[in-house]
Amino acid sequence: MIIALKHDARAEEIGDFTAFLEKQGVRVHLSEGASQTVLGLVGDTSGIDEEGLMARRLVEKVIRVQEPYKRANRVFHPEDTRIEIVVAGGKTRLLGGGYLGVIAGPCSVETREQIVTVAKAVKEAGAGFLRGGAFKPRTSPYSFQGLGCEGLDLLLEAKRETGLPIVTELMAIHQLEVFDGVDIIQVGARNMQNFALLKELGRCKKPVLLKRGPASTITELLMAAEYIMAGGNGRIILCERGIRTFDSYTRNTLDLSAVPALKRHTHLPVIVDPSHATGIAWMVPAMAKAAVAAGADGVIVEVHNDPETALCDGEQSITPDAFAALMGALEKYAEFEGKLLR
Amino acid sequence: MIIALKHDARAEEIGDFTAFLEKQGVRVHLSEGASQTVLGLVGDTSGIDEEGLMARRLVEKVIRVQEPYKRANRVFHPEDTRIEIVVAGGKTRLLGGGYLGVIAGPCSVETREQIVTVAKAVKEAGAGFLRGGAFKPRTSPYSFQGLGCEGLDLLLEAKRETGLPIVTELMAIHQLEVFDGVDIIQVGARNMQNFALLKELGRCKKPVLLKRGPASTITELLMAAEYIMAGGNGRIILCERGIRTFDSYTRNTLDLSAVPALKRHTHLPVIVDPSHATGIAWMVPAMAKAAVAAGADGVIVEVHNDPETALCDGEQSITPDAFAALMGALEKYAEFEGKLLR
Amino acid sequence: MIIALKHDARAEEIGDFTAFLEKQGVRVHLSEGASQTVLGLVGDTSGIDEEGLMARRLVEKVIRVQEPYKRANRVFHPEDTRIEIVVAGGKTRLLGGGYLGVIAGPCSVETREQIVTVAKAVKEAGAGFLRGGAFKPRTSPYSFQGLGCEGLDLLLEAKRETGLPIVTELMAIHQLEVFDGVDIIQVGARNMQNFALLKELGRCKKPVLLKRGPASTITELLMAAEYIMAGGNGRIILCERGIRTFDSYTRNTLDLSAVPALKRHTHLPVIVDPSHATGIAWMVPAMAKAAVAAGADGVIVEVHNDPETALCDGEQSITPDAFAALMGALEKYAEFEGKLLR
Amino acid sequence: MIIALKHDARAEEIGDFTAFLEKQGVRVHLSEGASQTVLGLVGDTSGIDEEGLMARRLVEKVIRVQEPYKRANRVFHPEDTRIEIVVAGGKTRLLGGGYLGVIAGPCSVETREQIVTVAKAVKEAGAGFLRGGAFKPRTSPYSFQGLGCEGLDLLLEAKRETGLPIVTELMAIHQLEVFDGVDIIQVGARNMQNFALLKELGRCKKPVLLKRGPASTITELLMAAEYIMAGGNGRIILCERGIRTFDSYTRNTLDLSAVPALKRHTHLPVIVDPSHATGIAWMVPAMAKAAVAAGADGVIVEVHNDPETALCDGEQSITPDAFAALMGALEKYAEFEGKLLR
Repeated sequence: MIIALKHDARAEEIGDFTAFLEKQGVRVHLSEGASQTVLGLVGDTSGIDEEGLMARRLVEKVIRVQEPYKRANRVFHPEDTRIEIVVAGGKTRLLGGGYLGVIAGPCSVETREQIVTVAKAVKEAGAGFLRGGAFKPRTSPYSFQGLGCEGLDLLLEAKRETGLPIVTELMAIHQLEVFDGVDIIQVGARNMQNFALLKELGRCKKPVLLKRGPASTITELLMAAEYIMAGGNGRIILCERGIRTFDSYTRNTLDLSAVPALKRHTHLPVIVDPSHATGIAWMVPAMAKAAVAAGADGVIVEVHNDPETALCDGEQSITPDAFAALMGALEKYAEFEGKLLR
Repeated sequence: MIIALKHDARAEEIGDFTAFLEKQGVRVHLSEGASQTVLGLVGDTSGIDEEGLMARRLVEKVIRVQEPYKRANRVFHPEDTRIEIVVAGGKTRLLGGGYLGVIAGPCSVETREQIVTVAKAVKEAGAGFLRGGAFKPRTSPYSFQGLGCEGLDLLLEAKRETGLPIVTELMAIHQLEVFDGVDIIQVGARNMQNFALLKELGRCKKPVLLKRGPASTITELLMAAEYIMAGGNGRIILCERGIRTFDSYTRNTLDLSAVPALKRHTHLPVIVDPSHATGIAWMVPAMAKAAVAAGADGVIVEVHNDPETALCDGEQSITPDAFAALMGALEKYAEFEGKLLR
Repeated sequence: MIIALKHDARAEEIGDFTAFLEKQGVRVHLSEGASQTVLGLVGDTSGIDEEGLMARRLVEKVIRVQEPYKRANRVFHPEDTRIEIVVAGGKTRLLGGGYLGVIAGPCSVETREQIVTVAKAVKEAGAGFLRGGAFKPRTSPYSFQGLGCEGLDLLLEAKRETGLPIVTELMAIHQLEVFDGVDIIQVGARNMQNFALLKELGRCKKPVLLKRGPASTITELLMAAEYIMAGGNGRIILCERGIRTFDSYTRNTLDLSAVPALKRHTHLPVIVDPSHATGIAWMVPAMAKAAVAAGADGVIVEVHNDPETALCDGEQSITPDAFAALMGALEKYAEFEGKLLR
Repeated sequence: MIIALKHDARAEEIGDFTAFLEKQGVRVHLSEGASQTVLGLVGDTSGIDEEGLMARRLVEKVIRVQEPYKRANRVFHPEDTRIEIVVAGGKTRLLGGGYLGVIAGPCSVETREQIVTVAKAVKEAGAGFLRGGAFKPRTSPYSFQGLGCEGLDLLLEAKRETGLPIVTELMAIHQLEVFDGVDIIQVGARNMQNFALLKELGRCKKPVLLKRGPASTITELLMAAEYIMAGGNGRIILCERGIRTFDSYTRNTLDLSAVPALKRHTHLPVIVDPSHATGIAWMVPAMAKAAVAAGADGVIVEVHNDPETALCDGEQSITPDAFAALMGALEKYAEFEGKLLR
């Protein structure tokens, strides 16, 4: 961290400020220029609050050279993290570190028939993981809120029938009690900075699929991952799912540049959700392919056997047939990008 | 709600779709135009998911005429809601419905001396409520996370010394157990769509100060309030605190147009937080005055006795002296806008 | 400007880079820290392209300490710039430097009767300047494009009848030939970075009302002003008129924080356009008052004698009666803020 | 267009309003519902101003069913438009309609040696078109503004040496006089709504590369194209080059969803500029591949023989070697997407 001081900073003030910084565990190197005094901080600056420093009268500007995240940082962990799920029969499913993971399924679990039908169809087409919502975060209290525990039971049944590991969203800490059979816990975009929840997931043994908040920067996403990792859980999948911008053609704006940016700064796998990002079914295949071309480690796609009557987000769900066609293209793209799909 | 159908919609499809809509409790009025068939929905459409309708092949466009919120809607509750807090000695503090409420205090409770000093200073200057954080949502797990329960105890002490009702943030449901002495529970911007938390607060008897999420629309803020109101708690204060935009001069962009917009659509009181919105202490007085001029029912302002050494957000805290000067201006503005300040 | 170098920067590279910088007219002060070498640039850095420096392998970060604008910078010109227009009979109209300027009139000039009626009404209510569009920038080539030269003639007639100086928009350089009688030339938001136009206006003797582009930062607005000032024309009025954000309740999001921010960094007067910012007539009075409370030197407001049949932007125009009521409030606000209105 | 009226709209008002609409050349179909009267407009509604209608007291909501652009609309011109440039020796270069066009070259023309070297390198690697700036729009008046006419001459020399058609930016109408040898005229993002310029280009015979403004919607981009087409010039290439959002990791946020969206609504070719969108050289290959995967008809990429010393935008320019590697990948991607590259 580099701190440029105001040109009228007095020696005594600088001394006090240096002492304050050193109490926070860093060494301070002072360099007096012709017109500007600059402090260079050496050591672990991740606990130092940049904005707080700006409250000091003598501070002109602060530049962070080192990123504020440590455990998520590729600098300290150069090799890719790979998520491995052991499924029935001892087989494993892999995502990241050279493996392209495809997660597919309906927005909400609705009935036994629906979830099992979709699960079989996406498995047949080559998906590696099944998604489905049991607890649903909905903008309106009057909208369908998911089947809850009953939905979880149906998901487990689909898992037993197909052998696909399951991914589903957790909305509150107390729901952890019923998440035993869940393979990957999803944290929704609206909860990305629910720090109480993140801390609890740090104490949990399951992989976490962490969705980027619609107004969160890349650094904030990595800091949210850092909350979980600081608690001891390093198995995190990051998910870009669109950000809020002025453009309203799509529900959100899919920020595919986030993929190479994240891959450069972290060792964690990065996937893309073209369904929630666009909110438009006919756009999903194009954006899923683009995600893989941009370097994503996977995609999460909404598939519904009858999108027109889906209880939730039907407008962004593709049919099993469209999904099968997409898988054909993704295989080719994975091959171009040197990734295995299984 | 008005639904324009595609011009190739078939009679049978339209019949099925009409039946589907009527099952959701509305009456459907069909009008066939020269080139376009339009369905008009009559009745309570708040439970109907607009986006879901777009999944139907035969639907061209959907327009919501009626707002999706009911309890928060001024149409069904024309008079302003006023929040009344009874303090020691049976006196009351009022906010909304003609009363301008000023909430002031430090970002974080740090020590007994700090909180009591600031509390006395802001009371002396004319503030009606004391704010202070005990549980702090911080972007980094390595930043100061607040004093927790000890912070709450210190806040209660400041309340006893000054008689000011206290406002503090709740980050997780289980913290409710220790919030007995708190007068107004704050839901932070990052938790605005933490629906599990909102539902719980619906069952609670205390007023809730609900902050607008940095990427939330006005309708989404009202729907978050609706979650709490649907549970039975109608004492909600809405707070505009800046939205995320491309502009990075200020921490967020204070959206003051939200004040008249909210006042038109809801009966709930609306306040403004110029401290978090701008993140810059010298901007706070100008934006606090502008908030009152725009029609706000109050402001929430960070005040710290020594901003330079604050453990949190010192760069946006004003001194007790600056706050006293601001109060002088706000009194004139409130009077001109026909509001009482006490 | 401070440039932090990568820790593996080689002495020879640093030498070459220093020589490159010094050729651009600055002195370079090198300070070698324990872990980081930092270059401090002394002198006029306004011609140095920050982003270009980032192309260098050895550069880690660049911080600009000095602002990139010079003529618009308050540091080099502490006193406020005041715009003075001499009108018929030798009287003057003032804006900035303690004078609150109110500019009012219709979006488009439509007929002689319309512009003269509105001009008389706004003068009667206390406006200092008349606005009206003759050349109209419209999103669609099929929308009404303004009356052109005929519209200018009608504006001049309204000026003769009322004595109000006139403000109208210039869309292309060649139109300057017919702008003789115009008192203040407006550059629209979409042309804020039409650099060929800005350069031409730098050679012109008339004051320029420069609107902020909907996606422009405060620094970019000041750099656009700098283009005009660099050509020799220092009489510029800056205008905040809303920025593009995710929020679609209002047409744009009025960024009132830009007012104190601009006032701090520049000596140029700053006004606000609540009509274009919100696009909603009933919001205009609240936001005009908030603008003055935030420190603006004036407002520009759309007024139409019959908003329902206006050829352009009727939905954001207020009636002469509403304008007269607003003027009453603005007088009071101007007084609170220590400004004269005339 | 469908107009929902307020439920208290009076018969007489409706009659007047209907007459007003019919004068604009549409037929109005009235349907009275139980609670809502709806007007359906039949005919060409492209000249009707939606927002203007909102000024009417009796109007509740307006929905546009038909898009406001006609000549750019795929509905009226289903087959793809292909841009064909005849080069020396009678050969043609194609872009769109099944042909992937790759445009490459430096941000600015700097010297004869630079532009010829880069032109040869990109031709050798397989680029179809040469780009290079002679007139440069720069944020600061103190930055390098391009070589102007001398730069154009050097570009023409590079064209003679390589046979590559050239693309360069026009900043003002009067520059058209010297654009004789230019093959494709670029309109920069900041001039996308410089309507005077667009109208002039409508009278011109050369293809136009129209860049999307950083705060422009997809509809606004198509309306800008419509301005040119309304003048008689239908040879337009649309270019997505990033939009302004809160995220500041990249210079702009590349909105790749705009590619399938535009391809659905218009017959014009759509290309992507990953260099300006990201502003970061190492991101360009990933985003160029993603653009082709998303369905783009081409890419425009900045290539510089020595990015570290480029006079402009070096941080986003890739080397000729990196470009050659990228071309290898793009060939495979183009083939898989069924496009020819030449």
